[in-house]
Amino acid sequence: MSPKPMTRPGGRSARVQEAVHAAVRELVGEVGRDAVTVPMVAARAGVTPSTIYRRWGDLQELLSDVAVERLRPETDPADLGSLRADLDAWAEQFLDEMASPSGRAYIRDALLGDPDGSNAGRCSAYAAEQIDAVLNRAAGRGEPVPDTERVIDRVVAPIMYRILFRPGGQGADYARELVANALHRP
Amino acid sequence: MSPKPMTRPGGRSARVQEAVHAAVRELVGEVGRDAVTVPMVAARAGVTPSTIYRRWGDLQELLSDVAVERLRPETDPADLGSLRADLDAWAEQFLDEMASPSGRAYIRDALLGDPDGSNAGRCSAYAAEQIDAVLNRAAGRGEPVPDTERVIDRVVAPIMYRILFRPGGQGADYARELVANALHRP
Repeated sequence: MSPKPMTRPGGRSARVQEAVHAAVRELVGEVGRDAVTVPMVAARAGVTPSTIYRRWGDLQELLSDVAVERLRPETDPADLGSLRADLDAWAEQFLDEMASPSGRAYIRDALLGDPDGSNAGRCSAYAAEQIDAVLNRAAGRGEPVPDTERVIDRVVAPIMYRILFRPGGQGADYARELVANALHRP
Repeated sequence: MSPKPMTRPGGRSARVQEAVHAAVRELVGEVGRDAVTVPMVAARAGVTPSTIYRRWGDLQELLSDVAVERLRPETDPADLGSLRADLDAWAEQFLDEMASPSGRAYIRDALLGDPDGSNAGRCSAYAAEQIDAVLNRAAGRGEPVPDTERVIDRVVAPIMYRILFRPGGQGADYARELVANALHRP
């Protein structure tokens, strides 16, 4: 399992994580991702390098942890009044964010420093939570809804596959086609 | 662009590639992937380490190149007499191979040492060629066929996404459900 932050807010562990993540983000912006080193991050965050090695293993695992945090959605999916409109809007925004240069870099970093797959699992869980929110709201309106795993297979998977393996000019039309397929039975 | 082998069979470049790839495969089997080094590979292949660095950049890029070669399909898809039967069989075999421990390791290696995405593109092209073969054969029989990109979105993408991000107990039933969706309009 990847090192997991203790989640007690305000505790020392949470403060260390926050300082180290902030240091990584600043340094990547200042010197570029490939020039960042663990001693530089430690100095900027005011911790010892061994604190970082103990908690994150190595630089690649730290970058993976930071990338997953950057991929965490910041807002709930918009409520546009219908399942189709909500899913269209969510899929378009997801495609936009993931296919952007920074999105691609975060996805790549998240996978690279993730020997056991737990960070990749966190990325997927974020998408599943957002889809759950859209589907629960639709069910509350009385709309028939597909299950979350189907939306993952039919909307999230093709978007992520194309970003990683088969980049092309996927845009909003593509996202809406995927949603149409997810809402179509079987 | 990743270093590409010259393809003239029997030329020095092809012989070097073959010797280096064979050395990597043997050493990974003997000492494990994490203990392999460029000097070990060079000694086994009878080349200098600088030959390897010049052609592959670093160990991770070499491992990526070897992994992609291992992911190259060895046979044409079976002809079972109908599009549905051919795609079902192909998808089940693809899922089996990719989700096996060695398949997962190759996919991971292929992505890791692939800064520009060209090795990931080769993996995707292999799958597309196999699907093309199945679809062309079906069209020759007079069957209506979806296009290759649709089969990639609906069959290949969910299989690869789940392997990388959301492992579960996907089996033959799952592969056949994906094929059913790919053959269903819209």
